Amino acid sequence: MPPDDGAAGRTSARSARGPYRKSAARRSEILDAALAVFGRSGYRSGSIREIAKAVGMSQAGLLHHFESKDALLTAVLRHRDQMYEELFEQPPGIDTLFAAIDVMVSSQAQRGHIELYCVLSAEATAADHPAHRYFARRYDRLRSGLAEAFERMAAAGQLRDGADPAIAARSALALMDGLQVQWLIDPESVDLVADLEVYFRALVTEEAWKAGTTGRPRVTG
Amino acid sequence: MPPDDGAAGRTSARSARGPYRKSAARRSEILDAALAVFGRSGYRSGSIREIAKAVGMSQAGLLHHFESKDALLTAVLRHRDQMYEELFEQPPGIDTLFAAIDVMVSSQAQRGHIELYCVLSAEATAADHPAHRYFARRYDRLRSGLAEAFERMAAAGQLRDGADPAIAARSALALMDGLQVQWLIDPESVDLVADLEVYFRALVTEEAWKAGTTGRPRVTG
Repeated sequence: MPPDDGAAGRTSARSARGPYRKSAARRSEILDAALAVFGRSGYRSGSIREIAKAVGMSQAGLLHHFESKDALLTAVLRHRDQMYEELFEQPPGIDTLFAAIDVMVSSQAQRGHIELYCVLSAEATAADHPAHRYFARRYDRLRSGLAEAFERMAAAGQLRDGADPAIAARSALALMDGLQVQWLIDPESVDLVADLEVYFRALVTEEAWKAGTTGRPRVTG
Repeated sequence: MPPDDGAAGRTSARSARGPYRKSAARRSEILDAALAVFGRSGYRSGSIREIAKAVGMSQAGLLHHFESKDALLTAVLRHRDQMYEELFEQPPGIDTLFAAIDVMVSSQAQRGHIELYCVLSAEATAADHPAHRYFARRYDRLRSGLAEAFERMAAAGQLRDGADPAIAARSALALMDGLQVQWLIDPESVDLVADLEVYFRALVTEEAWKAGTTGRPRVTG
């Protein structure tokens, strides 16, 4: 769940009726188009005109649903943050690591989504970028969530000697981001899932890994 | 050294005389301005107009030195690839890892430079981006250079059991990229140098690390 919510998501769209449902469906269509355009061109050069064209609307029509390009950007980011959804679905601990591996598995089927986060997080390193604050909070939250998972694992004796939860958290996040850049540039160059797994296995005790992977077909035990 | 050279660099500027020297100095000034503009705005929305303005030239004047925005981008990238310069200055082996740590040390003093590579590599994940091929080759070369260093270390018994040179190479590169994104967004959030060091120490035997760090004040032994 993103740190600051607000925009209507898919859930409310599903339960609504009549004109509101139609409007929610339209919003969802616009968000998909915005994801594709911002992912391809970045926020700065991606245009409302291009997004409107992709959904067969006028710019004025689109701006009826989202009042500005910034508002649209924020809505796209909040609507689609898979890393948030997957990492924080379970209590912090070794399952958080398997959720991170699952994020990498689904990445491979969602190039546009990965592109969006890769291009926007890079653009948003500039302090004046409209998504700067969003990404600063997102990274904070992801780091602290992962650190909590590693801390619980340390307390349970599941980490190898010398592993530092805070460093492991920011490094795991960095590794995921960096592998995705290499994968986007050349999908054959890295193995998103296997490479992250190798990193985690070097941190986790053999016993904890084996116990954690039982019943997980996608992870090698 | 970038994979395909060509543009006149700083060395030739230094040895030239008269009008050519003046022109080379001008080129160097333009490259500095382009680095700042592309680093801040990315390539797609960074403009020749903005770069020309920063060096007090007309757009036509600037285009006399670099025939197009693409040519300027390529020249900036070739001119300033610190990672290439530092990683491949010494024979592949444990010193390559210390060179990578040195890259992180100097990163902290060169925010604009790090921004440029971060923003452009993300933008260039799109296959139609003018720097796509440059980044594909750059990552290939950096991965294979690092892999060679790890392979030599494995052959010399300097890697811990189970460390895989190819995976370590792409992961180290990913980690450096990803840590830089987090650092650009919030400089307090990660420790570029210490975090990379922790990663390397987990791969390298205690003995090899101690021997390698002798006389290196910046690296903790």
